[in-house]
Amino acid sequence: MTFHDQAIFPRGFRCASRNCGLKPSAKDLALFVSETDASAAAVFTKNQFPGAPVILGRETIRGGMLRAIVVNSKVSNVATGAQGIENARRMAAAAAAEVGTEAGRVLVSSTGVIGVPLPIEIIERGLRGMTADLQPNPMVGAEGIMTTDTHPKALSASVGDATITWVAKGSGMIEPNMATMLVYIFTDAAFEAAELDRMLRLAVHNSFNMLSVDTDTSTSDTCAILANGLAGKIDPTAFLETLTAGCVRMTEILARDGEGAEHLLRVTVRGASTEGDARRVAKSLVNSPLIKTMVHGADPNVGRILMAIGKCFDCTVVPERTDAWINGFAVVQGGARLTFDDAVVRETLGREVVDIEIAMGVGDGNARAYGCDLTKGYIDENAAYYSS
Amino acid sequence: MTFHDQAIFPRGFRCASRNCGLKPSAKDLALFVSETDASAAAVFTKNQFPGAPVILGRETIRGGMLRAIVVNSKVSNVATGAQGIENARRMAAAAAAEVGTEAGRVLVSSTGVIGVPLPIEIIERGLRGMTADLQPNPMVGAEGIMTTDTHPKALSASVGDATITWVAKGSGMIEPNMATMLVYIFTDAAFEAAELDRMLRLAVHNSFNMLSVDTDTSTSDTCAILANGLAGKIDPTAFLETLTAGCVRMTEILARDGEGAEHLLRVTVRGASTEGDARRVAKSLVNSPLIKTMVHGADPNVGRILMAIGKCFDCTVVPERTDAWINGFAVVQGGARLTFDDAVVRETLGREVVDIEIAMGVGDGNARAYGCDLTKGYIDENAAYYSS
Repeated sequence: MTFHDQAIFPRGFRCASRNCGLKPSAKDLALFVSETDASAAAVFTKNQFPGAPVILGRETIRGGMLRAIVVNSKVSNVATGAQGIENARRMAAAAAAEVGTEAGRVLVSSTGVIGVPLPIEIIERGLRGMTADLQPNPMVGAEGIMTTDTHPKALSASVGDATITWVAKGSGMIEPNMATMLVYIFTDAAFEAAELDRMLRLAVHNSFNMLSVDTDTSTSDTCAILANGLAGKIDPTAFLETLTAGCVRMTEILARDGEGAEHLLRVTVRGASTEGDARRVAKSLVNSPLIKTMVHGADPNVGRILMAIGKCFDCTVVPERTDAWINGFAVVQGGARLTFDDAVVRETLGREVVDIEIAMGVGDGNARAYGCDLTKGYIDENAAYYSS
Repeated sequence: MTFHDQAIFPRGFRCASRNCGLKPSAKDLALFVSETDASAAAVFTKNQFPGAPVILGRETIRGGMLRAIVVNSKVSNVATGAQGIENARRMAAAAAAEVGTEAGRVLVSSTGVIGVPLPIEIIERGLRGMTADLQPNPMVGAEGIMTTDTHPKALSASVGDATITWVAKGSGMIEPNMATMLVYIFTDAAFEAAELDRMLRLAVHNSFNMLSVDTDTSTSDTCAILANGLAGKIDPTAFLETLTAGCVRMTEILARDGEGAEHLLRVTVRGASTEGDARRVAKSLVNSPLIKTMVHGADPNVGRILMAIGKCFDCTVVPERTDAWINGFAVVQGGARLTFDDAVVRETLGREVVDIEIAMGVGDGNARAYGCDLTKGYIDENAAYYSS
């Protein structure tokens, strides 16, 4: 598998983005189109207040076939009642008319403030003529779906004769469950929708579902994959391996661009009694404000690592068998703090990527979780997000 | 029941505090003494890396009888192995010798940095002659147990002829489970240890166990009650009512003094399908960084309230029946954002105490949780706590 230096689209995919007037001047509307119908699968947020586009998307994806994805940023069309569903349908219909397909082959997403009606006329007007702008750079589409992201996010990799391309947004309100923020995956490999669905769920399980910026699960999370088959059949094992590797890499990109983040935090847990325990412990660390501020302050306060393991009340934890490392330096052995060179560990904590590793010594369960540090930038962004 | 304007001790209790040299100059050692043996009960952290004082305390409290509590701040004696247990025993023995009782009647607590050996000789030396300083103001003891607290915390109330007095510390690493940070409750009412234990657990269930500053459960949480009986028998119903009211009030004091906090956040949930669901939803809101920054920024981004309810995946949530209020102003009805006077709600969010109320419309489960806003002060305090 090879990641490309610059993101490109697989055969038959193009995108466009523009400012339609939801934001003062930044891009706020994106359209992704496959030149032929593509097999498709998707996973969505488990939040019990799903946005209107998620409710509609669950219905749309049952068909297993998509031609296009249309996305607006700034307003998420969540908590908007029956009118919200109607507006999501109008958005699908407008995109379908522009692309020349039916509304049931268009996946709709909206991201931004919750609880504000979607200005649907502005979006309908904005979509008109947009196919004329379609071009082959995935970053152009990624620009149209940003909210608090500091940069557009796209990635591509080869697998055999096919290409897989990820386009994503996400920076805050991120602890996906069954899905993530908006992630669209495009491939020209040929797979049936059911097999795509199975592979997507496997890849998401160890990537986006192990990501947390702030423990808050968005009401709009959507991860969809479109396979238009233009590259023909691809070995499923190789495909799944590349799909997973790209999802992990995009997870790291999202974590690193967490609101206000200055570090990517990776927590690896080995030897837990089950995979579920390993996932819980790893998540406990990436979600702990005291671990996150420790990483931010480059302060090797390793007692907090034990605190965050120990607060997993339902996991098997044997203090005497618990070891921990920060960036490869042993800091805890048998549940007690080791004497280590404070200055050296402190210096490694200044790195952009911080790795904490835990060996629990009670079984074969392994997991890795992805997060970021907690900074004043997070507070700046979120104390006035709604009104700004 | 009447809360006193200034905290006083019940009959027969006194305390002392001093600087013994763990901190540069602030007080770091406290001693609480009952002139007679007192019935006693306690609850401790459920963190699976309990500190040595918690391990010893569980053993001590089995006797159901205490004469004294000795507490040091600055070093928590957690993750310190067998030597830590030995040091906790030495601390109990030194206090017992000073007070004139046996080590099994002394509860030991330590609070501060995790993973650093307890300088036991300094504490033993510090305890010598400390009974000569014993005096009747609970605030003096409260001063000796502070870490990041901005003020000492004590409270007292009358119930019949008896007095109940709470002395507490706690500001960060607070999401107690079965207990809380250090809270000591003193009364001259007469109760057997078993009945005290039952009442303590009931009071803690709806107070300290509904408190969260930062989702992080300390390894040292301890809540103990001592009843020396000098006021004779007190009606248990009235006693439990006052005990609970004081625990709730102390919970609010702790939340308001959460690290960096500028607001006390109270979240009340009504009409959940069970009490457990109500507790989970209320906790979800007080723990959500996006709710906490919304309160901090006085920004009525009410969609975040729905997000935080909806991410309680295992709770019964029916969007169409969900209503919400901020400081008494209706902001959500039937799962959709209401039109409300933004400026008015924004102004009420500036209050020191912010109340969010949720009606779930699916049952009779009620709960209230206590927390605070998330500010840059929290990050300042925790990015360099260990090294400062």
